[in-house]
Parts: sequence; C-alpha cells; structure tokens
Amino acid sequence: MSAPLRLGIAGLGTVGIGVVKIIQNHADLLAARCGRAVTITAVCARDRHKNRDADLSDYAWEESAVDLARRDDVDVFVELIGGDEGIAKDATEAALDSGKDVVTANKAMLAVHGQALAERAEAQDRLIRFEAAVAGGIPVIKTMTESLAGNALTRVMGVMNGTCNYILTRMQSAGLPYETVFEEARQLGYLEADPTLDVGGIDASHKLAILAAIAFGTRVAFDAVEIEGIERVSIDDINRAADMGYRIKLLGVAQMTARGLEQRMSPCLVPCDSPLGQLEGGTNMVVIEGDAVGQIVLRGAGAGEGPTASAVLSDIVDIARGIRLPVFGQPAAALQTPHPARTAVPAAYYLRLELADKPGALAKVATVLGDAGISIDRMRQYGHAAGSAPVLIVTHKTTPEAIDHAIAALPRTGVITGDPVELRIEEV
Amino acid sequence: MSAPLRLGIAGLGTVGIGVVKIIQNHADLLAARCGRAVTITAVCARDRHKNRDADLSDYAWEESAVDLARRDDVDVFVELIGGDEGIAKDATEAALDSGKDVVTANKAMLAVHGQALAERAEAQDRLIRFEAAVAGGIPVIKTMTESLAGNALTRVMGVMNGTCNYILTRMQSAGLPYETVFEEARQLGYLEADPTLDVGGIDASHKLAILAAIAFGTRVAFDAVEIEGIERVSIDDINRAADMGYRIKLLGVAQMTARGLEQRMSPCLVPCDSPLGQLEGGTNMVVIEGDAVGQIVLRGAGAGEGPTASAVLSDIVDIARGIRLPVFGQPAAALQTPHPARTAVPAAYYLRLELADKPGALAKVATVLGDAGISIDRMRQYGHAAGSAPVLIVTHKTTPEAIDHAIAALPRTGVITGDPVELRIEEV
Repeated sequence: MSAPLRLGIAGLGTVGIGVVKIIQNHADLLAARCGRAVTITAVCARDRHKNRDADLSDYAWEESAVDLARRDDVDVFVELIGGDEGIAKDATEAALDSGKDVVTANKAMLAVHGQALAERAEAQDRLIRFEAAVAGGIPVIKTMTESLAGNALTRVMGVMNGTCNYILTRMQSAGLPYETVFEEARQLGYLEADPTLDVGGIDASHKLAILAAIAFGTRVAFDAVEIEGIERVSIDDINRAADMGYRIKLLGVAQMTARGLEQRMSPCLVPCDSPLGQLEGGTNMVVIEGDAVGQIVLRGAGAGEGPTASAVLSDIVDIARGIRLPVFGQPAAALQTPHPARTAVPAAYYLRLELADKPGALAKVATVLGDAGISIDRMRQYGHAAGSAPVLIVTHKTTPEAIDHAIAALPRTGVITGDPVELRIEEV
Repeated sequence: MSAPLRLGIAGLGTVGIGVVKIIQNHADLLAARCGRAVTITAVCARDRHKNRDADLSDYAWEESAVDLARRDDVDVFVELIGGDEGIAKDATEAALDSGKDVVTANKAMLAVHGQALAERAEAQDRLIRFEAAVAGGIPVIKTMTESLAGNALTRVMGVMNGTCNYILTRMQSAGLPYETVFEEARQLGYLEADPTLDVGGIDASHKLAILAAIAFGTRVAFDAVEIEGIERVSIDDINRAADMGYRIKLLGVAQMTARGLEQRMSPCLVPCDSPLGQLEGGTNMVVIEGDAVGQIVLRGAGAGEGPTASAVLSDIVDIARGIRLPVFGQPAAALQTPHPARTAVPAAYYLRLELADKPGALAKVATVLGDAGISIDRMRQYGHAAGSAPVLIVTHKTTPEAIDHAIAALPRTGVITGDPVELRIEEV
C-alpha cells in the first residue's frame, strides 16, 4: 500500500465538516478503495473557536489558508472557502505554485478564473478537481469528462439551483406569490447571504458556464451567459402554464450551434411529464445530450453536507488512485475561445396577454403575431374580469427575434393592458 | 503525445460497429481528450463477408477471437461477442494472459465468472472494464466505483432491461395482454434469441449481480439473485395497480441488510409519480443510494448502437488516459463472499383476490391477514361479475414470510376463487 494521501482542508462550513466526517468515518472503506489511506494533516477556517460538529483535535490548525496551502505535509489542498476572489483564489494559486493538487467546490472562482487557474495548474503539472462545484452530489463533471468522452456533446441543460426550484415548486403547490415564498425560503436559510446569487440565476450560471466549457472544449465564458432570474415569475404564469401542460423551471441551457455557443439561464416552460418537469423541491437535475449516447439524465441532491462532501470525496479518491486528467478534460491550451451566439435557436413560446374587452381585440393580436411570422399552436382565452381577459398563446417554433418584434408591437394595438409576458418553451 | 492506443475488436454486431464508427468519426476529439490517438489494429467476427455499415478495410481481419486477443500489436482487447462461456471467455482469458487490457460489454460472462476473471486480470496487472455491460449508455459503473467512492452504498436498484419495460408500459398504454405485447416485441426484434433472458429477468439479474458486487465490495453472486420475470404480470394487475397510484416495473434491488445481501429481480409496484414509476418504454434507470450522497438517479438508453458504444468508449478513453483501477473497484482478493439474505426486508404489498359473492367473505379474508400479522392500509372492492368480485389490498409494511403465510391460508377460507396475486411495493 502506498503512502497516505495527506489533505489540507480550508473552510469548515457545512461541506468542510461533511468531508472531515466522511474521512473519519470511512477510513477503512477509503483505504480499501484507494489502495492507500486518506488522511487530514491540517485545517483552517475563519473562526477557530466556533463549535463544530466534528473532532478536529488531530489536525494542525492554520490561521491562513495560504499557509495551509503551502505546507510541505499536504499533498492536496481542499478549498471549501468559496467566493470568486480573495482568499480562496490566493490559496488555490499558492497550492498550485507549491506543487499541490487542488480539490474545490468553488463554482464562482472556476466560472470567473477557470482558464487562468487551469493554465497555472498545468504549468505545474498539478490538478484542479471540482465535482462538487456543479450540482452537489450529482456526478456531472465526471460523467461529461470521462463517461461521455466518446461523444460529441450537443446540449447540456439542467436545474442547478435547488433554492430556485424549491421556490417555484412551492409557489405552484401552495398557490403562493413569489414574494411570500421568497420570504419563506429566506427564513428557512435556503438563500445565500446575497440572494441575487440564487434567485438572480447567477449561481446556476456559474455552474452552466463550467459545464459548457467541458462539453464543448471551450474556455469557460461566464460573462457570455444570458442570465435571467426567477424574480418576474408570477403565480399566474405558473398556474396558466400548468393548465397548458407545462412547469416553469429556472433552466440553464448550453448548446453549440452554427451561430456560436449559446448559454442561457432563464425561466423556461418544460412539459410537466418530462423528467425536468417532474423535478420537485430542492433536487437538481442535469440533462446531457451526446451524438452517440442520446440523452442522459442525472438527478440528485444539489446541495447539503452529505451530497456535496460526497462529490469532494470523489475527487479526493481519484487523486489518491492516481487518476490525473486536464482540468477541463483536455489541455487548457487546446480550449477554444467560444464565439457567443447572438440569439437563441428557435423554440416555441408561451405568451400571456391581458386583452381589453373590445370587439376585434383578438384579431388585432393575431395580426401582430402573423405579421411577425409567428404561428399559433394553441390559444386559450379565460373569463372576463374588470374589462380585460387573460389570453394564453403557445406558439409554434419561432425565433427570439420574431417574439421580440411581436412583444414590442403588441402594446401599439391598443387592445392589451399591462405588459405581455413571454417565456421560452424548451424542448427537453 | 504518447503512442496510439491500439484496439482489437472482437464482435462486429450493432455495438461493435458502433464502436468502430465512433473511433473513425471522432478521431480528433478522442486524441484531444486522451492525449494520444485511439486506433483499431484488427477485428474479427463470425462472418467476414456480412454486409456491415462501416469501412473495415484498414484493419487486419482475424478468423479467431483468441488469435486477435494475442496479437502483439493490440493493447486493448474489446470483447463484444457475448455469452458467458465459449469464445468470449476464451478470448478474454487469452487477452489477459498475453498482457492485454480488456474492455467488454458482456454482462453474462462477468456475472458468472467475474471473480475468476478479476483475479486473473490482477495477477497480470491488467484491467477488465465493463461500463457497457450494465444499463447501456448510463454511466453506472463509473458512478458507483468512482463518483460515489466516499459513500457506504446502501441500496442499488433499477429498471435494467428495456424490453421488459417496453412490454409493461405498452401493456398499460394500449390495454393489451402480455402475450400480445410479447409477440409485438418479438416482431420488432426487441427480444433476445432466447427471450427468457429478457422476460425471465435473467439479463437484468446479470446486471444486478455486477452492481451488487461493486456496491458492497462482495464477490459477484449471480446464483444468489432471487429472480422472477414478467411473464405472470397481467393487464388486470397493471390496471388495478394504476388505480391505486402505482406502476408495475421489473425492478432489480440489491441491498446489504443485517441478514445478509439481498438481491431481488421481480415485478414490483412503484409510485406512479416516482422517477422509476415515470419511466416509459425502453429507457433504463438506475437508482443508487449512499450514506452521504442520498439518492442519485441515472436515466438513459439501456441498449442500442450509440449508447452502448458510448459506454465502451468510456472505458477505452480511461485506458488511453492511463486510468487503472481494480476490476470491481477494489482488489479482487479483498472482495468478501456475500452471505445471501434468506428473505427480503419488510415492505408493503399489493394483493389481488377474487372474492366469492358470499356473506362474510371479506371478513374471512381480513381475519386471515390479521392472523398473519398483516394490517391493511387501503382496500378496494370492485363491482361483482359472475359471482365474484376483485378485491385489491395494499398492506402496511410486513414481512415476506407473513405474506407467504397469508397467501397459503387464503384459499382455505373457501371464499376466494383462483389464485391470489401478491406483488411487492418497493419504497423508492
């Protein structure tokens, strides 16, 4: 049996403590599976004296993550601090520069600095592994990088922020408005300190940008993700979409098209009987499509102590077993700078309008859509109330440009009140 | 860039040709991902002159798979012949003995000879990789062996024979009896030459035994799988189960219990709104549960040229990248001989009886169940026809022994006609 693999763990929040517990509780299992022991040399965290649910007395304590990263008796630096800048990045760079492999759960850092860090790691012949950065316990990085390595991947999509999916499914099941459920989620501790990271779609977009890089062999391009959060999703639209057989999900989609790399994070409609449509609560789902494999769906807990620690251990075990791969599945220098697609590929759209109770109103709407080249698949007009009637339209497949054109033209008809709502219907 | 990885491919059926096509069409992609070229040196198959959907003219042709396996210019022997004995096994052994790694899709061979082959491989410091042997394109072997290596796995279950799931879902959607749909499936070419392998649950049990070995660190024990096929599943039970909110699936379940290793393959009820319940047609699904990760669900095509070839390539790429792991995730010598559990863990059960139209009949049935210690969760009696009425019972959680006891006692009440049907309701 080889020498033990010695870890330095920076960050002792939920995930860090989860990792410590697994290494303590499954020492024999890990040794059997790795052919060597996995041990912890040293740890660090902001507050040494915080009461933590694990015995850390066997480990050296470092005040600084950078010092921890440079210790001679550490083989792998496990970065569980978080944040795209500051101490997490400084310590990661210090670890690489002093010849350590890095395991991290830090999606923000990789989304923003992934290329530079990958180049730095490869220059030192070191690894950065990050299974825990995307979709918690779901093995999406390994599946894409290794299991589907014989495929040209064509599309990756998923529900990758459990808090948003909790809010949307809770709105639906309880019939509550967004603001109420948002407040519930906040009180349950489901939201990040800056909730925009969750409900603004930023956290999920970090993950999407990482997946796109692996899927298409491109440099991670978080800035090019078109992001829309769930703040404008109304209980009305959730209910109307359900009437038409759909669920609204904060869906990330990355695909390589003839017009470039498309990366979108936005509330979309998906059929309620599809795996994505059936996904309730805080669970995550990633759908990967390849030219040989067809469609693979992975589902599991996207956050939490156990699931995220499980993903961190996946990377640690790989390193202990001597598995060494380039950071994004191929050498950083080979990754192409992606050309972002200017617009999304055509899709069906859901439109909701408040139609004034005037003769010929619907005809005017239909004319606007027809003039924009949009044909109607299904239409429903609901009972009148207070002089206006909600109208739902599901279009046939059309371009985002045509929809934008129609949305701009509709108010000029003088027969709709308020702003029309448009949501993309993603083919899943 | 290192020297090319040279393959010898034995078996040029659907999967073999799928592998050849990926290697031809994705040569650049594979080279970028592996850091070296992946090439084919030689191939063999039963009939050299069969018309195949691929250009094989660049490859040497061997008449014998054993000779192919021994060629000096082959690094990896790719066994896609099938069958647990005979040429597949002979050639696999020859490959290992002459220092080749082996990639195979052969679930039967591994289920029956997995331990001996693993020992032989490790004695030669060679690999056997078999992602394609279980659930086609779904990366279940890698997920269990690598991604979840930080978990004590607690249960693995799944729908792993697409033909059976096609038959069961088609019976339900079309309201057709088993015999009719079986014949349809035969004519569509969905069935193995020996259909018992499919509908008798044997093929799926081969897969289950392999997954159990990996999950629990035990020697593969196909003989210990308790197998029941789908032949006795009636359209009546499918419809009645649906009335109660369930679907009937041929479900494989492996779990390590205090009473030993439980491996069951049988028609089970699962809630119709669970991922397993929602699985339609030929798709496969594997559910893996671990102490840290919770539940992971993997879904995808379980068979077919592209998906299965994708899984074969996953193994080939790993070998090209220098990834070397023990055959079942830990050294063969460390695998324990499992102690098979004598009976399954308690579960709720579905019972269907034909009750004679006699006063006090239901009371007698209820008494038998009560005497066996079985309590009733839900009961439905349907309209009478021809002197008897179907009665459905969903029990609370009880032991298989109690159910067996009740099933034996029920006919003695004199108030039921025909044989009672009992099906396990699996908690998913």
